[in-house]
Amino acid sequence: MNNFTPYDTYLNQHLDESIAELSTLCAQPSISAQNLGMEEGAQLVAQMLTKRGFQARVMPTGGAPVVYGEMAGANREKTLLFYNHYDVQPPEPLDLWESPPFEPVQRDGRLYARGVSDDKGHIVSRLFALDALLAQDGELPCNVKFIIEGEEEVGSVHLPAFVEAHQAMLAADACIWEFGGVNHEEIPMQFAGLRGICYVELSVETASIDAHSGLGGSIFPNAAWRLVWALNSLKGSDERIRIPGYYDNVLPPSERDLKYLAALPDPAEEYRSRYGIKEFLKGLSGGVALKQAEIFEPTCTICGLTAGYQGPGSKTVLPARASAKVDFRLVPQQTPEEVLAKLRAHLDAEGFSDVEITFLGGGPPARTDPEHPFIQLVVNTAEAVYGVPMQIIPLSGGSGPNYPFVHVLGLPVATAGLGHPGSQAHAPNENIRLDLYEKHARHMVRVLKTFAAG
Amino acid sequence: MNNFTPYDTYLNQHLDESIAELSTLCAQPSISAQNLGMEEGAQLVAQMLTKRGFQARVMPTGGAPVVYGEMAGANREKTLLFYNHYDVQPPEPLDLWESPPFEPVQRDGRLYARGVSDDKGHIVSRLFALDALLAQDGELPCNVKFIIEGEEEVGSVHLPAFVEAHQAMLAADACIWEFGGVNHEEIPMQFAGLRGICYVELSVETASIDAHSGLGGSIFPNAAWRLVWALNSLKGSDERIRIPGYYDNVLPPSERDLKYLAALPDPAEEYRSRYGIKEFLKGLSGGVALKQAEIFEPTCTICGLTAGYQGPGSKTVLPARASAKVDFRLVPQQTPEEVLAKLRAHLDAEGFSDVEITFLGGGPPARTDPEHPFIQLVVNTAEAVYGVPMQIIPLSGGSGPNYPFVHVLGLPVATAGLGHPGSQAHAPNENIRLDLYEKHARHMVRVLKTFAAG
Repeated sequence: MNNFTPYDTYLNQHLDESIAELSTLCAQPSISAQNLGMEEGAQLVAQMLTKRGFQARVMPTGGAPVVYGEMAGANREKTLLFYNHYDVQPPEPLDLWESPPFEPVQRDGRLYARGVSDDKGHIVSRLFALDALLAQDGELPCNVKFIIEGEEEVGSVHLPAFVEAHQAMLAADACIWEFGGVNHEEIPMQFAGLRGICYVELSVETASIDAHSGLGGSIFPNAAWRLVWALNSLKGSDERIRIPGYYDNVLPPSERDLKYLAALPDPAEEYRSRYGIKEFLKGLSGGVALKQAEIFEPTCTICGLTAGYQGPGSKTVLPARASAKVDFRLVPQQTPEEVLAKLRAHLDAEGFSDVEITFLGGGPPARTDPEHPFIQLVVNTAEAVYGVPMQIIPLSGGSGPNYPFVHVLGLPVATAGLGHPGSQAHAPNENIRLDLYEKHARHMVRVLKTFAAG
Repeated sequence: MNNFTPYDTYLNQHLDESIAELSTLCAQPSISAQNLGMEEGAQLVAQMLTKRGFQARVMPTGGAPVVYGEMAGANREKTLLFYNHYDVQPPEPLDLWESPPFEPVQRDGRLYARGVSDDKGHIVSRLFALDALLAQDGELPCNVKFIIEGEEEVGSVHLPAFVEAHQAMLAADACIWEFGGVNHEEIPMQFAGLRGICYVELSVETASIDAHSGLGGSIFPNAAWRLVWALNSLKGSDERIRIPGYYDNVLPPSERDLKYLAALPDPAEEYRSRYGIKEFLKGLSGGVALKQAEIFEPTCTICGLTAGYQGPGSKTVLPARASAKVDFRLVPQQTPEEVLAKLRAHLDAEGFSDVEITFLGGGPPARTDPEHPFIQLVVNTAEAVYGVPMQIIPLSGGSGPNYPFVHVLGLPVATAGLGHPGSQAHAPNENIRLDLYEKHARHMVRVLKTFAAG
């Protein structure tokens, strides 16, 4: 396709309308972690599909509903499936927002709102691309399906079973994932896979009530100490995860993976300045070694600690309860089931049978071959829009429920999106750049046209 | 003195008036942690002293003021000093109070209010004892001084320097401490010393902002992990404190200490049922060994942990900051200065120079010889009131600012008070039993008369 087509003209002329629709969607809170506005959010998304001619349904899952929609296109032999989610992160801390999180507002070429980037902007910009195709051609170039879930921000707990149970409905030839965007050099990124995740809460209870620390310090078990020792048994300051067998199923990156990594920009300086990090772990300073460690090493991350008194000053309390949130990122071929079993066995063996494990969600890693024709199609169609093809990242450090799409539905899954390094997803002042919003829609038009013709 | 004297008759006939005065004092919040009502509380206490004929002053300390009062008595050669405090703990959580914390109310022979036991009841019952002596004898039997501070609940930060600076004013022959009471067998307890305390916050900052755990798990330093490893270096699951030299200045209990411990009831069953504890540490099950460990071993207690995400469900965050509250209880001859220096040196040596130590308060331990004549006087005068002499506990597991009284003013310090095991000090529904209130005043009359005559 040429650099500027009638579709692009349409998108350029109707940008304000699409942003208005996106603003309406963002004004509706749909916070899965707080079970706030989920039904309303789902209905609103279903209406947006229906009014374009989709057969759309709000479907129960056991948790927040899934919105499903499908529309036939000119080439009835080809089906593209979009995976998105309508739930958003909690907006807290509210005092750090420059404008209220559920009152979308434009400033300096950006639109600010909770969920505007993750993931409502992706939903609406994709619908915007379909609008351009429908306006110009009177129909879509191929069949299009949307699966838009409401639990992505809380671990997609019910999604794998939903996909498993609706394989015929979801049957397609390829899938576009919910997210993507440009890096700090404005180059669009293609993540050809996601790490898995096993997110647990570890909790200990040593007494029925807290005690005075003057009383029990040397004779009462202390839940906070038990937790510290249990955590310490998981990983030492050498960063080696001590759970026996944890690395057994870790596949090292292939030569080709390393070649892709070598082609990516060095993130070291960006990380240092963005996060105020003085030194990376394990003596890493940048280059392929840093990128390889970031993506291809499994992790054991403490995401949160809580016990006893946490206010200002001192309170002499001996805590009866303590807990930690711990996130294991999994690389091929690790699975959450395997990690849970090995974690339990390890804690028991180390004398921490009193430490309870609560599985809070997760799934295995999944990858699509970066040289799969569909990945190449998405990568190459980007060039007309962004001036360069997408840069391939062989595996994302992040996670998502792509496993059932890759391994149950058997689809190649490509990423693409409108994010940018300052999007502040999951943080206050989440935003999208309107130029990237329009570019993503232009890219999606090209993906659909090329895919339908292929 | 006989079992029932004219002083006792006075106390029995004027109990309601004294409880009314106590209620007025308790209705005035004086919450040091929130700097609420401190000046008003101090003025009210000063007025209570003045109206009885004390020379009373509200004196600045740099923090909440000290109320000081003195009155000469018949024997001008003997001076008894009372140490009390007019500040109270915050009343939260408010919803657990059966009646409002600052609206004192009687129910079932008890008076309920924040601070009614700790420590306003002690102040007013001692004044009540003086009222009986003044009413019967027209004067006190000896000189009496009161030092009533306003920062006991926040670590008595300014008290040691105040005592140091006012040694002549505070000169006395003996001191009655702020607290005391009966155990669950209704036997009054004599604590002949208090452990010291060194309360610190340990904090780590590894980045300027939290990161997404999918991004940095294997390459970014994680403040929560740093904190866990630093804490683990302080004490292992064998309960041995690993700070080099930590036990150097620990004096083991004497034969006499152990004799006193052996005479005390076994607390094991009481602790098991009150706190829901299944097993004590180090294989202890009760008896002298449990009592010895409880009191004569220094401690390192995690009172609180905080890092990252602590809400329901999962949030994939890599924390930039983490902190712990840690309470070291000190036995003779340890000092907070020594512990702080050894803690810093240890953390540095273990590679935790990034862990910051903030001293939140403390002081050294201090003891009075349990066979000191003044302790014996307080112990033995209890018998006419309680039916038994006080039971001597050679050292309290708790802490308080007795060090400057013992080691700067050179005073024997005895405890005595109106507490009972259900007093709920520091908790909702704090209360005193009116029978014990009256008994404490009767005991104090006997202490003063015997002390003045001795």
